[in-house]
Amino acid sequence: MRFHTRKWVKPEDLNANETLFGGRLLSWIDEEAALYSIIQLENKKVVTKYMSEINFMSTAHQGDIIEIGIEVVKFGKSSLVLKCEARNKMNRETILTVDNIIMVNLDSKGKPLPHGKTKIEYVKDRLAEEEDD
Amino acid sequence: MRFHTRKWVKPEDLNANETLFGGRLLSWIDEEAALYSIIQLENKKVVTKYMSEINFMSTAHQGDIIEIGIEVVKFGKSSLVLKCEARNKMNRETILTVDNIIMVNLDSKGKPLPHGKTKIEYVKDRLAEEEDD
Amino acid sequence: MRFHTRKWVKPEDLNANETLFGGRLLSWIDEEAALYSIIQLENKKVVTKYMSEINFMSTAHQGDIIEIGIEVVKFGKSSLVLKCEARNKMNRETILTVDNIIMVNLDSKGKPLPHGKTKIEYVKDRLAEEEDD
Amino acid sequence: MRFHTRKWVKPEDLNANETLFGGRLLSWIDEEAALYSIIQLENKKVVTKYMSEINFMSTAHQGDIIEIGIEVVKFGKSSLVLKCEARNKMNRETILTVDNIIMVNLDSKGKPLPHGKTKIEYVKDRLAEEEDD
Amino acid sequence: MRFHTRKWVKPEDLNANETLFGGRLLSWIDEEAALYSIIQLENKKVVTKYMSEINFMSTAHQGDIIEIGIEVVKFGKSSLVLKCEARNKMNRETILTVDNIIMVNLDSKGKPLPHGKTKIEYVKDRLAEEEDD
Amino acid sequence: MRFHTRKWVKPEDLNANETLFGGRLLSWIDEEAALYSIIQLENKKVVTKYMSEINFMSTAHQGDIIEIGIEVVKFGKSSLVLKCEARNKMNRETILTVDNIIMVNLDSKGKPLPHGKTKIEYVKDRLAEEEDD
Repeated sequence: MRFHTRKWVKPEDLNANETLFGGRLLSWIDEEAALYSIIQLENKKVVTKYMSEINFMSTAHQGDIIEIGIEVVKFGKSSLVLKCEARNKMNRETILTVDNIIMVNLDSKGKPLPHGKTKIEYVKDRLAEEEDD
Repeated sequence: MRFHTRKWVKPEDLNANETLFGGRLLSWIDEEAALYSIIQLENKKVVTKYMSEINFMSTAHQGDIIEIGIEVVKFGKSSLVLKCEARNKMNRETILTVDNIIMVNLDSKGKPLPHGKTKIEYVKDRLAEEEDD
Repeated sequence: MRFHTRKWVKPEDLNANETLFGGRLLSWIDEEAALYSIIQLENKKVVTKYMSEINFMSTAHQGDIIEIGIEVVKFGKSSLVLKCEARNKMNRETILTVDNIIMVNLDSKGKPLPHGKTKIEYVKDRLAEEEDD
Repeated sequence: MRFHTRKWVKPEDLNANETLFGGRLLSWIDEEAALYSIIQLENKKVVTKYMSEINFMSTAHQGDIIEIGIEVVKFGKSSLVLKCEARNKMNRETILTVDNIIMVNLDSKGKPLPHGKTKIEYVKDRLAEEEDD
Repeated sequence: MRFHTRKWVKPEDLNANETLFGGRLLSWIDEEAALYSIIQLENKKVVTKYMSEINFMSTAHQGDIIEIGIEVVKFGKSSLVLKCEARNKMNRETILTVDNIIMVNLDSKGKPLPHGKTKIEYVKDRLAEEEDD
Repeated sequence: MRFHTRKWVKPEDLNANETLFGGRLLSWIDEEAALYSIIQLENKKVVTKYMSEINFMSTAHQGDIIEIGIEVVKFGKSSLVLKCEARNKMNRETILTVDNIIMVNLDSKGKPLPHGKTKIEYVKDRLAEEEDD
């Protein structure tokens, strides 16, 4: 699993228990899953269709740094299935995992659209190919 | 299921597909579950422990009004299990459902604390009882 | 008066006195009045025209739950007059009341438009009628 | 009336009618009134107690620049009464006026505290006096 | 230098050191520079092109009031060069200065557009001239 | 240079020219620099002291994905000097670069504190060492 985006837990991210508000974390994870899918599928119109069960295993406090990891589970025809983990950057304690997030590739009318992708691609390779042409 | 809180879908709640950003909706639902639990358990220190799988059944657009409903599934010893639905206020189309959200009642040190509740209570009844004393 | 939307007072809602920032509360009330009007008038283009005087009777603190109640005062020709109250959910202490909020129904060009409504309607009745047709 | 703070109307400040959301404007005005009072009363613990009726005379659109003016109506014993206007910076069209905003000076326990001020002071004069000592 | 916009340092503006988050301050300054340029150049399409080095000379804390000052350094052909300072309103301590912020005037396609301005103008004078016509 | 955090350009991040608001980008960069420093210096109390000149070389639009890269320029005694770049994730076009951002390590009283670090460390190595002990 590759961890990219990092978030800094600020006062506005806390619940009344002074720990990281679960809804904020879900929002961060959904955004990261969307970003990852947009990059892989090379299409800006990608939406979340399904999330499997979510276990909040630990929490975080103000000033903590969270990193969010994404891994591809499966390339569907017009979907992309991701696995996600949020963990504390400094001690690598897992905060939350989601085994399956199904993202759907859409056409300009919002209907599912086959994306033709079957494996992970890296932007640098895509750009290198363009230069080779 | 009782629907209370209403949300107005604004530009800042949209994804690049110009539909309601899933992560925003999850954040709204988690907040409503927390509010409901705080009211029922009469304790401000309540956190989300688990969410069962989430199906995004339809979406919403800018200017739509969403209402969020909560229903108690079970009173545990130190937990409260909720069911949640978000739907379009105007046509009642379901946007998302979550069958089980487990909220945990905490003591001042953040440890699970038995809440002693076994059934839904209404604030007006609690206040009436206080007046009867 | 019916109370629907609930708000959780978070750090970002406080003033330097560590109590609920008045402007935030006014913003919540205006949004709730707009939502209520949109639902009643079945038109998304509704704007606030006037608010009568506002008394801040008590305040709220971080972690408190506020509920916002709306009541129809009068159906005008192209307007809807509302009464509003914000109170603490747990002890029902009134935080603020506004006796008259005048909302105006607009056409697509932003001009006042008669709405044809004369009494409160419930969405479930509207949907039932549609099914009866 | 002196106009200081300027606000830029952004997408997040709009209602579904694509005009400036009234609640946002009320929030800006309340903040400006608080700032002004804190400066005049030299006390950070100042809260809004009352606002007289509010007329929304015109509106604003995305990209417009709003400026907010404040004028002192009266220095009370522990209060400060302000008058406020929000207008379009470029054409000076009035958007909203509030004739009386009563701000109350509080002590550390949140009780009204006489502020001893009777007229408008400027920070530069205060600082000059300090240097004279 | 003229100081207009005032900002109130709130919990959401703080870093983990409980002082004003530098990025927030940069964001405020950039917005004020944009506002100022829009007013002077009478064009809403103005963007930031360059900022000279930035020294954070002191900081601010929750509840502090910051005022932001702007001064014109030079009118270019399609640009406007500004100088900026943020300081504490109450004690006038400088928090940050930027000697050169280059703003560029754009046409409807986003290309640099000569603005024809050579000196500072005041909105009241512009409006007075219009009345004289 | 290593690129980690990714940002999705949303409506709330745009200026009136419908391009990415420069102030928002500066805010993202400052946050990333702070996060990076906290991780390297293993101290949460790190603040921005200085930024060298900033060139806005291109811009971004709604729906674009931005990635932010950080590189260490120098470990000072109580400072850390960073270089930063923001670029478009999909085509790698540079949006902005800052050659020197000086972050300062602080003690609990907010005074500069020698950090004892002289080279980049990775969290996994730190954790491995702990396990070796």
